[in-house]
Amino acid sequence: MNNYDEIAELIKKKKFKFIVTIARGTSDCAALFGSYIFAKYLGLPTYSMPPSIITLEKSNFDFSLALVIVISQSGVSKDLIECEENVRKMGGKTLIISNNTNSPMINHSHFFFNLNADKEKSVAATKTFVMTLLVLLKLTFYSASKKKITSLIDQLSEHLIQDSKNQWNVESVDSSISTGFILSRGVGFALSNEISLKFKELCQEQIEPFSSAEVMHGPRSLIQNSFKLFILSINDDSGRSVQKDSKELMRYTNLSHEISFDKNINSNFFYPSFESSELDPIVIMTKFYPWVVNYSFKKGLDPDNPRYLTKITQTY
Amino acid sequence: MNNYDEIAELIKKKKFKFIVTIARGTSDCAALFGSYIFAKYLGLPTYSMPPSIITLEKSNFDFSLALVIVISQSGVSKDLIECEENVRKMGGKTLIISNNTNSPMINHSHFFFNLNADKEKSVAATKTFVMTLLVLLKLTFYSASKKKITSLIDQLSEHLIQDSKNQWNVESVDSSISTGFILSRGVGFALSNEISLKFKELCQEQIEPFSSAEVMHGPRSLIQNSFKLFILSINDDSGRSVQKDSKELMRYTNLSHEISFDKNINSNFFYPSFESSELDPIVIMTKFYPWVVNYSFKKGLDPDNPRYLTKITQTY
Repeated sequence: MNNYDEIAELIKKKKFKFIVTIARGTSDCAALFGSYIFAKYLGLPTYSMPPSIITLEKSNFDFSLALVIVISQSGVSKDLIECEENVRKMGGKTLIISNNTNSPMINHSHFFFNLNADKEKSVAATKTFVMTLLVLLKLTFYSASKKKITSLIDQLSEHLIQDSKNQWNVESVDSSISTGFILSRGVGFALSNEISLKFKELCQEQIEPFSSAEVMHGPRSLIQNSFKLFILSINDDSGRSVQKDSKELMRYTNLSHEISFDKNINSNFFYPSFESSELDPIVIMTKFYPWVVNYSFKKGLDPDNPRYLTKITQTY
Repeated sequence: MNNYDEIAELIKKKKFKFIVTIARGTSDCAALFGSYIFAKYLGLPTYSMPPSIITLEKSNFDFSLALVIVISQSGVSKDLIECEENVRKMGGKTLIISNNTNSPMINHSHFFFNLNADKEKSVAATKTFVMTLLVLLKLTFYSASKKKITSLIDQLSEHLIQDSKNQWNVESVDSSISTGFILSRGVGFALSNEISLKFKELCQEQIEPFSSAEVMHGPRSLIQNSFKLFILSINDDSGRSVQKDSKELMRYTNLSHEISFDKNINSNFFYPSFESSELDPIVIMTKFYPWVVNYSFKKGLDPDNPRYLTKITQTY
């Protein structure tokens, strides 16, 4: 029995009543993605735990019914190591998702998934984000008794290779404007968070993520000409609702772009929906990452060395 | 026995293993505040449920161990009404926090707290945010067997009245710059989210909230001269860590401002810490709201009628 099977068994037997995620930065965007699919497909609520609750507040929980997922590319962040130790003491079963097989966290954790993303040479993690989504999808679909996810992932590789020549064009976006929103909803919302981080980190652009439902409560006031608007829609009910919500907002600015599966939209950010649209987030990110690297170059920046940043961020 | 006592009893008897919050906009910032104090003082994890999980995905949960808190100033948002009905069917005990005693939500809910904030005449809710924090604090401290919160709230009123002449000055902030961050951590992080919303809604400024720990993962790349940096620190361990984290970042820009209790800091945004610092969030918001209204006027805007916005936001 592999780890996926074992966790799926525990979920089916209701040994876990809720999930806890602990992560920072890009890994936290992946955790947000996880929280949505755990709710959507497994009916499991997720507590996104701020590490400070452990490191500063020394809070104590009853985690006997919790599956605790720690996501850390490097596996060596001190605050996450302290969190993992503590939640285990509180009865939580811990699952580490990391790209480091030497991470001290995996010594005592109950489960470990290796991202196998090879070395991340640049400061900005990209491969590990995509690989984390795959682990979370596989975990979710195993637990929902949909093991065909494994063969779908194989087919997805083919799909991506076939479409690899269709790359998004950096010329379509005005690089002289550095503020905007990226709106999405549903599973797409987590992607918009990660895309926002990369715009900040690699392009020095403040493209802030918002739920297309939340943006109506105040933030829409910002939208005007010379403010960028990216709309990300997934090929599902959430995507259709994003498109509907955004129609009015797109009238406020001359700089709107739709990241969409819909061929009827005149979009520079088209992505071909995979037959199993649950895997579309992977399709989108494999289009976005090469694009954002080129867009960073276009702005005269070095995406491998964003200013002020170091490879491992130590926060406490 | 009042509602506070009754819920406190249920929490003490471990009838609730976790909390669920459902809210949007400003109310969601209050929910975020709740999630932190529930963890810090009660050791209860909180699932912040995106309404789309119910309205779009029709997910089904086992909420038999959940206290479900719905926060809605108007009490008439369709998506929240649908969420309340559904989580009750899934076994959750629902608690409504609203400013509307005629809200259809309160007819079947298990608990109701009236905000008693009188009529919110402007589009932007401010009184209801402060009153929601008070309800959440009272609920938390009753459950932690600290009933003296009630007399502390009375003393807080005195404290606020005595200090009401010390208002923050709108001249200290450069109104020609419209982008920046507001950094905080711990219970302060929820406040920075609400402050950010008001900057957007009333002042058309994109002041994005970040945890001072999270900002190290990428977003710090944005900080430079002509980018505003607000630092909000609470009078506790989180506040001290925010001040430490921010020191380096403040060197990147000539436009940094500290919202602080610390008299040693040369700050235009000083607030006098209350003897029980758990109530400082109220002190901060009662300083900020009048300030942001005046700042909006200074920018030639009408804070009572932000552009594009209506009083009740219907999202679905």
